[in-house]
Amino acid sequence: MSRYTHLADFDQLAGMLAVAGRELCPVIRSASRALLEADAEAARAVRAEVAAARGLHDRIESWVPAVLARRQPVASDLRLLVAGLRMNGDMRRMGVLAGHIAGVALSRYPDPVLPAQVRPTFVAMADAAARLADKAALVMATRDRVDAIQTGLDDDELDALQRSLFTVLTDDWPYGIPAAVDVAMLGRYYERFADHAVGVARQVAYLIDGNR
Amino acid sequence: MSRYTHLADFDQLAGMLAVAGRELCPVIRSASRALLEADAEAARAVRAEVAAARGLHDRIESWVPAVLARRQPVASDLRLLVAGLRMNGDMRRMGVLAGHIAGVALSRYPDPVLPAQVRPTFVAMADAAARLADKAALVMATRDRVDAIQTGLDDDELDALQRSLFTVLTDDWPYGIPAAVDVAMLGRYYERFADHAVGVARQVAYLIDGNR
Repeated sequence: MSRYTHLADFDQLAGMLAVAGRELCPVIRSASRALLEADAEAARAVRAEVAAARGLHDRIESWVPAVLARRQPVASDLRLLVAGLRMNGDMRRMGVLAGHIAGVALSRYPDPVLPAQVRPTFVAMADAAARLADKAALVMATRDRVDAIQTGLDDDELDALQRSLFTVLTDDWPYGIPAAVDVAMLGRYYERFADHAVGVARQVAYLIDGNR
Repeated sequence: MSRYTHLADFDQLAGMLAVAGRELCPVIRSASRALLEADAEAARAVRAEVAAARGLHDRIESWVPAVLARRQPVASDLRLLVAGLRMNGDMRRMGVLAGHIAGVALSRYPDPVLPAQVRPTFVAMADAAARLADKAALVMATRDRVDAIQTGLDDDELDALQRSLFTVLTDDWPYGIPAAVDVAMLGRYYERFADHAVGVARQVAYLIDGNR
């Protein structure tokens, strides 16, 4: 096996991961547009994109053990494979969660899901989640350690928004039970999406220096 | 390196995974007892056990790449490492979710979280989740392919319970918003717990025959 083939294996994984990461950025934006604008077309686009991404995630998932067996890699090559498997799992969940957000929007269509009172919170959550997805995709491309670590801090913003949402729900909520349940679940989906984006960035940090 | 040392590496992983799996069975039962009986001691025990399990999960997580590098395994040894990494991730989440269930119980203590109307649903969910945890631990020990596949079907029961919960929440819920939000989130935690138990069983099936 030539050195060239060897490189191709690892480059191919890095390439597939990069594609999966980049695709998540428009997906979460579409999901948020579906939610914030009651845009059924955006919601359906998310579901189609998530279904399409499943093929790529499955491919990475079965591809990593094959390369492990074929290349018997060590050091940074091995880390790429282990981190790739974890990142792939995180990105798969990010897609599923974006799909859940779109699904809630569709389930109420043509009515908006969000009462006016919590709309600003979700605008901020949508923005924070999109920025985290961008950052995760960026650090996968640049493998910048400082950016990778920074991503974990950005996640705090979304946690704070999520907490403020629960305060509103508990204190004074005049919009009825189904809306409350929707809002609670949506808050949870954004929070988990953010956690997984941080997970991706954390794997990049692991990739660079081998520490978790 | 002797064949014995080689075996010890893989036996050790299988052993650590088995311990992690077995520990989850009492953890989810304690979490459900905390929830169903407003048992603060059980809730605190869950949190302590989940915190303690984190050490084991971290150890498996850093141990797998080390063995990959040291042993350069192929075939079933390689599958054990890849599956072990995935199972470990699933089990880590199962612990966190049991901790969330206990946390909700603690947040309302000494009041019960569940209105009488949904109590039977949660008794059934708790039972289904405990059986899934048992089954996941069992298939890890026996590596029985039929049991591993069967676990996926048991999960359907929990999905149906979760749907029935949302119907109650949407149709007629006289217990106020905070209780509705608690119940929705708790349903979600049980559902995700079950998904991860199925994930563990699926990895055992992969371990046996290499198909996902």
